Amino acid sequence: MIKKAARLLKDWNNILVLSHASPDGDTLGSASALIRGLKSIGKNVRFACSDKVDKRYNYLFEGLSSEMNTEGFVPDKVVTVDVADRKLLGKYEEIYGGKTDLAIDHHGSHKYFAAETFLDANSASNCENIYKLLLEMGIMVDRKMGQAIFTGMSTDTGCFKYSNVTPETHEIAAELMRLDIDAAEINRVMFDTRTRGQVKAEVAILDTIEYFDEGKIALITITSELMEKTGIFDEDIDMFVSIPRQIEGVLVGITLKERGEALFKVSVRTNQNIDASAICGRLGGGGHNGAAGCSVRGNVSEVKAKILTAAREQLL
Amino acid sequence: MIKKAARLLKDWNNILVLSHASPDGDTLGSASALIRGLKSIGKNVRFACSDKVDKRYNYLFEGLSSEMNTEGFVPDKVVTVDVADRKLLGKYEEIYGGKTDLAIDHHGSHKYFAAETFLDANSASNCENIYKLLLEMGIMVDRKMGQAIFTGMSTDTGCFKYSNVTPETHEIAAELMRLDIDAAEINRVMFDTRTRGQVKAEVAILDTIEYFDEGKIALITITSELMEKTGIFDEDIDMFVSIPRQIEGVLVGITLKERGEALFKVSVRTNQNIDASAICGRLGGGGHNGAAGCSVRGNVSEVKAKILTAAREQLL
Repeated sequence: MIKKAARLLKDWNNILVLSHASPDGDTLGSASALIRGLKSIGKNVRFACSDKVDKRYNYLFEGLSSEMNTEGFVPDKVVTVDVADRKLLGKYEEIYGGKTDLAIDHHGSHKYFAAETFLDANSASNCENIYKLLLEMGIMVDRKMGQAIFTGMSTDTGCFKYSNVTPETHEIAAELMRLDIDAAEINRVMFDTRTRGQVKAEVAILDTIEYFDEGKIALITITSELMEKTGIFDEDIDMFVSIPRQIEGVLVGITLKERGEALFKVSVRTNQNIDASAICGRLGGGGHNGAAGCSVRGNVSEVKAKILTAAREQLL
Repeated sequence: MIKKAARLLKDWNNILVLSHASPDGDTLGSASALIRGLKSIGKNVRFACSDKVDKRYNYLFEGLSSEMNTEGFVPDKVVTVDVADRKLLGKYEEIYGGKTDLAIDHHGSHKYFAAETFLDANSASNCENIYKLLLEMGIMVDRKMGQAIFTGMSTDTGCFKYSNVTPETHEIAAELMRLDIDAAEINRVMFDTRTRGQVKAEVAILDTIEYFDEGKIALITITSELMEKTGIFDEDIDMFVSIPRQIEGVLVGITLKERGEALFKVSVRTNQNIDASAICGRLGGGGHNGAAGCSVRGNVSEVKAKILTAAREQLL
C-alpha cells in the first residue's frame, strides 16, 4: 500500500490535504509534514480543517501561510490524514467525503471511504505512517517535518507512555531527534502547559470524587454549572476522565458529564480486566474492555444510581 | 572508563551493590539490572539501600530475595549505582562511604568518592550506563534486566518528556521493547497511579494557588497542617513543585513548603530564561537557571513577601 501511495503522490499535483475535525496533534502533525514534504518536491498543496486549530499548534504551520489559504483553490486531488471515517471531515464531508483520492490513516476502525487507502494500524500514530511514506517517496525529511512528525507521535502516545508504543515508535523518535528537533519543548507545550481555568477546573472536578464499595468504584461529576464557573471547554474534560481509574484500589472509574436537561454522558474506565463495555452496554452504550461510554437520562442522583448498579453487577 | 569497569566487574566476586537513599526508579532499576546481570555470570551479589523501597518497585526484585538479604555478608567489593555523592548513601555512608570500589553514575555533579568511576553524564538515566556496561561485559540482557533498565530510563526522563532525553535514549528503549518488556504497564505504575491521599492533597494544594503581577508569578503554599490533613509525605510534594510554572503566562512559579516553626523551604521554577538561581541567591539559596531553592525564616506572609520581592527584582 505504501508503494502505491508514494507513487500516486509523486504523480499528482494541486493537492488538498484534509485533517479531521476537532484537530489533534496527530492529524495536524501529519498534515504539516506531508504538506512540507510535497512542497519540497515542487507540488502545489493546500490545507484545510473543519475546525479552528489551537494556537499551541501554530509552529506546525510556520511558513505555510499560502498553503493555509484555500480561497479559489480547486484541487485536482484530495488526501486525508488521520481520518478514520468521512464523517470526521466535519463541514468538508459534504464537499469531499465522496471525493477523497487517498486516505492515509492508522486507525484499526478505518472505514475505507477513499479511492485509495494507505493504512497501517500497527503504527501508534499516523505521523509514523507519514514518516515512512516521505522516506518511500525519497523526500529528505528536514527539521520542520521532523518536528511535525514528532508532535503526532508524542501526542498520540501520551508521550510514549501507552501500550500503542512499539519499538519502531522509539526508533523513529531517535531518528527525528538526530534532526535536532526541539522534542522537549514540544512535549512541554503539549503536556506541561495549562491555563488558569484548567487549574481551577481541576480543583473543582477532583473535589467531586466519591468512592463506593470500599474504594473499588470512584466517580467524578462534572456539571454544566462547574464548566461555566471555571470557563473550561468540552475538550478539557478528556484529561480528567482517566483520573478515577488511576487511584489505588479503584477497579471502575466513572465520570459523569452533564450534557443537557436531565442528560449525562457517562465515561467508564476499568482496571484488572473488568469489562467497561459490559457496564455501559447495560445502559445502551458500548466501547472497549477498558474504556467505554453511554448516555444516561435522569437527574444527577438518578444517573449515579443507574451507573453504580451497572458497575456493581459487573464487579460481582 | 566503561571497558575498565566491565573488566573489574568480571574479575570481582562477592559484590555489594548500593543504591542511594530515598531510592527512585533509576537507582533501583540500575541495581536490579546489575545484580541480575552479575548473577547470570555466576557472581555472588547482594543489594542494600539505606531507605525502604516503595512497593511499586517490587517487580524489580522479584526472584532476588537471597540477594536482598545482607545478614552476615562481608563484601569483597562495593559498587554504587546512581550515587553522585557518598553522603547520599544514607546510613551506609559511615561503613562504605570511603570503601567504594566502583561508582557507576550519570550525574554531572558526581563527586568522585570511589576508587574507580564509570561516569557518563550524557546519559539521561544511569540505567542507560548499566545497559551499555552489561553489553560491554558480554552479558545477555534478558527481559527482567530490560524491565529494570526501562524503569530507570522512563522515570528519570518523565516518560521521555524532558530535555535530558537523547536519540540514544529512544534507541535503547526500542531495543528493550524488543525483549517484550511490559513498558506500558511500567509507565502506568510509575506515572498514572495515585493514592486517595495524593488526590486529596492535589485538590488542597492547587486550591492555594495565588497569582501576582498580572499572572507572571504563581505561588502555592503547602503548610504542615495541609500535609497532616491529607496524609501525604515529603516525597509526594515533588510532583506539585512544577505546577505553578506550567500555567500559561507564568514566568516565575514558586512553592512554599513549611519545614518547621517559622521556617519554609522555597522552590522556584522559571520560564523564558528568568534566572531562578538569582532569585533564590538573594535569599541565601541557589540552583540552576530554571530551577532553584532556598530556606526562608518567618511566618507564611513574611516568607511570601520576601520571595515575591526577590522574584520582582529579577523580573524587572
